[in-house]
Amino acid sequence: MPQKIRTIELHRSVFEDNDARATALREKLARSGVFLVNVMSSPGAGKTTTLIALITKLKSKYNIGVMEADIDSDKDAVSVAQATGVRSVQLHTGGMCHLDADMTAQGLDALGTGLDLVFLENVGNLVCPAEYDTGAHLDMTILSVPEGDDKPLKYPLIYQKCDLVLINKIDAIGYFDFDLEKCKRAVACRNAAATVIPVSAKTGENIDAVAAYLESRISK
Amino acid sequence: MPQKIRTIELHRSVFEDNDARATALREKLARSGVFLVNVMSSPGAGKTTTLIALITKLKSKYNIGVMEADIDSDKDAVSVAQATGVRSVQLHTGGMCHLDADMTAQGLDALGTGLDLVFLENVGNLVCPAEYDTGAHLDMTILSVPEGDDKPLKYPLIYQKCDLVLINKIDAIGYFDFDLEKCKRAVACRNAAATVIPVSAKTGENIDAVAAYLESRISK
Repeated sequence: MPQKIRTIELHRSVFEDNDARATALREKLARSGVFLVNVMSSPGAGKTTTLIALITKLKSKYNIGVMEADIDSDKDAVSVAQATGVRSVQLHTGGMCHLDADMTAQGLDALGTGLDLVFLENVGNLVCPAEYDTGAHLDMTILSVPEGDDKPLKYPLIYQKCDLVLINKIDAIGYFDFDLEKCKRAVACRNAAATVIPVSAKTGENIDAVAAYLESRISK
Repeated sequence: MPQKIRTIELHRSVFEDNDARATALREKLARSGVFLVNVMSSPGAGKTTTLIALITKLKSKYNIGVMEADIDSDKDAVSVAQATGVRSVQLHTGGMCHLDADMTAQGLDALGTGLDLVFLENVGNLVCPAEYDTGAHLDMTILSVPEGDDKPLKYPLIYQKCDLVLINKIDAIGYFDFDLEKCKRAVACRNAAATVIPVSAKTGENIDAVAAYLESRISK
């Protein structure tokens, strides 16, 4: 029977200083032993499928929660809950193109306590989410092969700000004109410190490597 | 030798009432015999490749100009100019996630006179561009097969507001779990009046049908 999904209608933040609120949220979460991962990408790059694959690997080791931001459907939260059984809430942004730290805190309140790893699936958008610190401890951007190897050159900020870049749908690389080394160089040009892992959420390729990377970051 | 591309750094609009300015721009363009098409999609859905294919079909009949909006590269304007020879300008949005009517007018001024069909390639984003009327006579949204058939349900506004939906990369449909009829129903659920045309900008499939649709709209 499908798990009942709670949907939260986020209200627009009234706070001017998002950076200060994000820093405070990050510190508060760290004190409570919660590691928060912000997941960003274009629409359709595979955020939800990647989260399902990752959570399946990690759920025996961590108490995991998921916040799925969307403009108005609840499809993703239902998918994650059904596929993994972890606690999941749907956040409705009311048409807003990003989440900030206060909206993230609203979602965390709804998700409840007792978790040690929380994933926030941000709105599918390569521009606006990069401009707002959510308070996450780790920012992950997913680029998918069909989008093209030039995206890091065209959407600079999101690559500059993230710790981890997954190049997803790598199983389809034979079908598209996508140069993996060129793409890695384009990411490095924006952010030499970012870790890049090519994956296929569909076939599971390299999901172990992503899980290992997350574990190493959580245990720091 | 590559055509020299003019790049315009757009300044943020100071006008409150974008809808009124968009209506005025649309009427002014119509009086001058210019038909403006606003092209929107996710990053990497194939806006530039589709425009190149369409312009190649239409350039013997119309004096065409192209405005390529991007956050900071000039790759797309160079690609269009090299592939088609039509007049092309690059618009830099300075990090902004959309174009409004005033920014579109700045681009049109830079493009110059003597044109009768102008394409505006908006910033790759399914959320914000839908909220701002650019003054275009026709709004076109491109959805690509690898993004998934559920996008019209997840990004409602852009589908509600557009006249024409192209489902691109249809040549790759065998590789992805994409149900064309389900996608068409999802578009119809948001906007029963939208025309939907499956295409492949890569192979040229159905580009003739898109060109014919545009011609019918221009001659109205």
